[in-house]
Amino acid sequence: MTKNGAKSLMEAFRQAPYRLTGHGPRTVGVLKEALQDIDDGRDSDMYGKGEVIEAFQQKMAAVLGKEAAVFFPSGTMAQQIALRVWCDRKGVRKVAYHPLCHLEIHEEDGLKRLHHIEPVLLADSGRLIGLEDVTGLKEDIGCLLLELPQRELGGELPAYETLKAISAYCREKGIPLHLDGARLFEILPYYGKTAAEVSELFDSVYLSFYKGLGGVAGAILAGSRDFMAETVPWKRRYGGDLISLYPYILSADYYYEQRSSCMEQYYREARELAALFNECHPAVSTRPPVPVSNMFHVHLRAPKEKLEAMLAGLYEETGIGMTGWVAEKDGHVSSFEISVGDQYGRIPKEELREAFRKLGLRLSALQQAD
Amino acid sequence: MTKNGAKSLMEAFRQAPYRLTGHGPRTVGVLKEALQDIDDGRDSDMYGKGEVIEAFQQKMAAVLGKEAAVFFPSGTMAQQIALRVWCDRKGVRKVAYHPLCHLEIHEEDGLKRLHHIEPVLLADSGRLIGLEDVTGLKEDIGCLLLELPQRELGGELPAYETLKAISAYCREKGIPLHLDGARLFEILPYYGKTAAEVSELFDSVYLSFYKGLGGVAGAILAGSRDFMAETVPWKRRYGGDLISLYPYILSADYYYEQRSSCMEQYYREARELAALFNECHPAVSTRPPVPVSNMFHVHLRAPKEKLEAMLAGLYEETGIGMTGWVAEKDGHVSSFEISVGDQYGRIPKEELREAFRKLGLRLSALQQAD
Repeated sequence: MTKNGAKSLMEAFRQAPYRLTGHGPRTVGVLKEALQDIDDGRDSDMYGKGEVIEAFQQKMAAVLGKEAAVFFPSGTMAQQIALRVWCDRKGVRKVAYHPLCHLEIHEEDGLKRLHHIEPVLLADSGRLIGLEDVTGLKEDIGCLLLELPQRELGGELPAYETLKAISAYCREKGIPLHLDGARLFEILPYYGKTAAEVSELFDSVYLSFYKGLGGVAGAILAGSRDFMAETVPWKRRYGGDLISLYPYILSADYYYEQRSSCMEQYYREARELAALFNECHPAVSTRPPVPVSNMFHVHLRAPKEKLEAMLAGLYEETGIGMTGWVAEKDGHVSSFEISVGDQYGRIPKEELREAFRKLGLRLSALQQAD
Repeated sequence: MTKNGAKSLMEAFRQAPYRLTGHGPRTVGVLKEALQDIDDGRDSDMYGKGEVIEAFQQKMAAVLGKEAAVFFPSGTMAQQIALRVWCDRKGVRKVAYHPLCHLEIHEEDGLKRLHHIEPVLLADSGRLIGLEDVTGLKEDIGCLLLELPQRELGGELPAYETLKAISAYCREKGIPLHLDGARLFEILPYYGKTAAEVSELFDSVYLSFYKGLGGVAGAILAGSRDFMAETVPWKRRYGGDLISLYPYILSADYYYEQRSSCMEQYYREARELAALFNECHPAVSTRPPVPVSNMFHVHLRAPKEKLEAMLAGLYEETGIGMTGWVAEKDGHVSSFEISVGDQYGRIPKEELREAFRKLGLRLSALQQAD
């Protein structure tokens, strides 16, 4: 039942003419569009060399205000390698990060199994890392990783002053500071900073091209020239130094050019959309209540299976897909993630309001049926 | 001088209207051609799931006669993981392979640095692994890796009877046998076997899509269902479980369909071409003397720098590029690799013979100038 419910919700979401979240389906067309104006005769990169990869790495290094950048097939690979290099430099096999860090919950313990690096978990799964968590660190660590925004907390962000204070403390103490900036561009409008200004607080920065930028895959890791040079042999050790990464690089560049300037719009629209959720019914709330990027989580006091069935019907009735996937928080509360992209702005406002009115009615009906 | 020589040789090779080796330049057009008949609306794979990846994995498992197959971004990643899983199963952190194995010379010691697996080197850098090397093994090993053909030895192959004997011995002794089959399709005409027949001798098989098949990148690892299931979490740990691998999968499938049936032709042409080298001048010989796949190495008694300058001039005069890259064996002998692909068959035979006549003359002139 759950499985069928989940499947039909995804199908209903995909079939809806409008969607609240994302840039649209991840299809081969996304790659073909990125390639359409690329000359057939343009050379592939070759094992990390060549104009297509070197030019993009230089461009991204400049965007991030770092001396050097290396393109990786994935953020998982890039970040593990960054932490390994920092740990080797410090001679310490420990890193500090949040309990909901990507490395802790989504990577099958790659950092531990491949590098025998153990994490020191800061803060807790209900809140962000603060300055006091860092100054209270009792152990030697090779690196501190901060994720901005903290995806698993609905995309919450610390105050910029807190970031600056953590960065200053780490520099004073000689603790390398790494940014999991998978969604770095998405937070710039809230902070009112450039990517280079935020990156300046960090010693190494990772950036993803398939989150808010909507590329096919791939990641950039940036830092000092000597630090990045140490990551390159690790990229080969991992089998990430592919003969050709250009399918990801060209699409990353294309969608970076197309969408890095849209983040202000996505951020504004995310606040508008979160308000629609928060106002539609008392059983609905968002985290954060007012988004600080293009993303937020929606929490609903409704059991997952009933919610999925209700939402699938709602999409069919209104033509607006809200999410393709619902997570169970506990038996009574469900949640899903919204990442505002190109899709949201295409929805006629009248139909949007009507969909939220109907969501409220259906939630009331669901509660009365209980 | 060397660097300029090397650069101008590659340029001269690329500018030549005809080429002895390869399928043509690795350009974006290679990917665009593979995508041209793919529907824009076709769904991406998603972290190892979805029709595009699952169907191709099943197809390749069937081709290799194995229960299951997993697509990896690279052979480096696939093979390290295969060896790790075999070692974990046996509780032994040693594997046996040839001193010129890809893992030993091209992967920055990834196997050692990431898994603390140490190699036992069999045979020596001048010859293939034979049955007696295997039966003479004194140590417990987690896995034996054989590379067919042995690329760094010009693509030499053991007799099929030797392979069968090694396989039978390993099964008797409970030693898992892994095939580095980066160029598996390329050897089938010589053995007169199907891919499944060769793979049947091995417990796990790796296959590359950008060697003789000429795809963009990517690899298949195949084996029993339970073995392959153990490799999947490692693919995630490595950061190889990308959200989208379809650029590589679709091109792998396209060029597999286009070229897996051409291997007989490439093999026949490689023998013809090796004969032209062997007959053109006494200072030239090939390894093997008669190729056993589409590849061979050319050895020339001439110093690298002089040879490069001579070849660049030859390409310009004849319109036929022979290689873009020359290796120095020692001060007096140079070598390069030939992999016969689509390019060779396009050369008019008359011009081909003329180019070899001129190669012989230029080599004589080079020797007289010394």
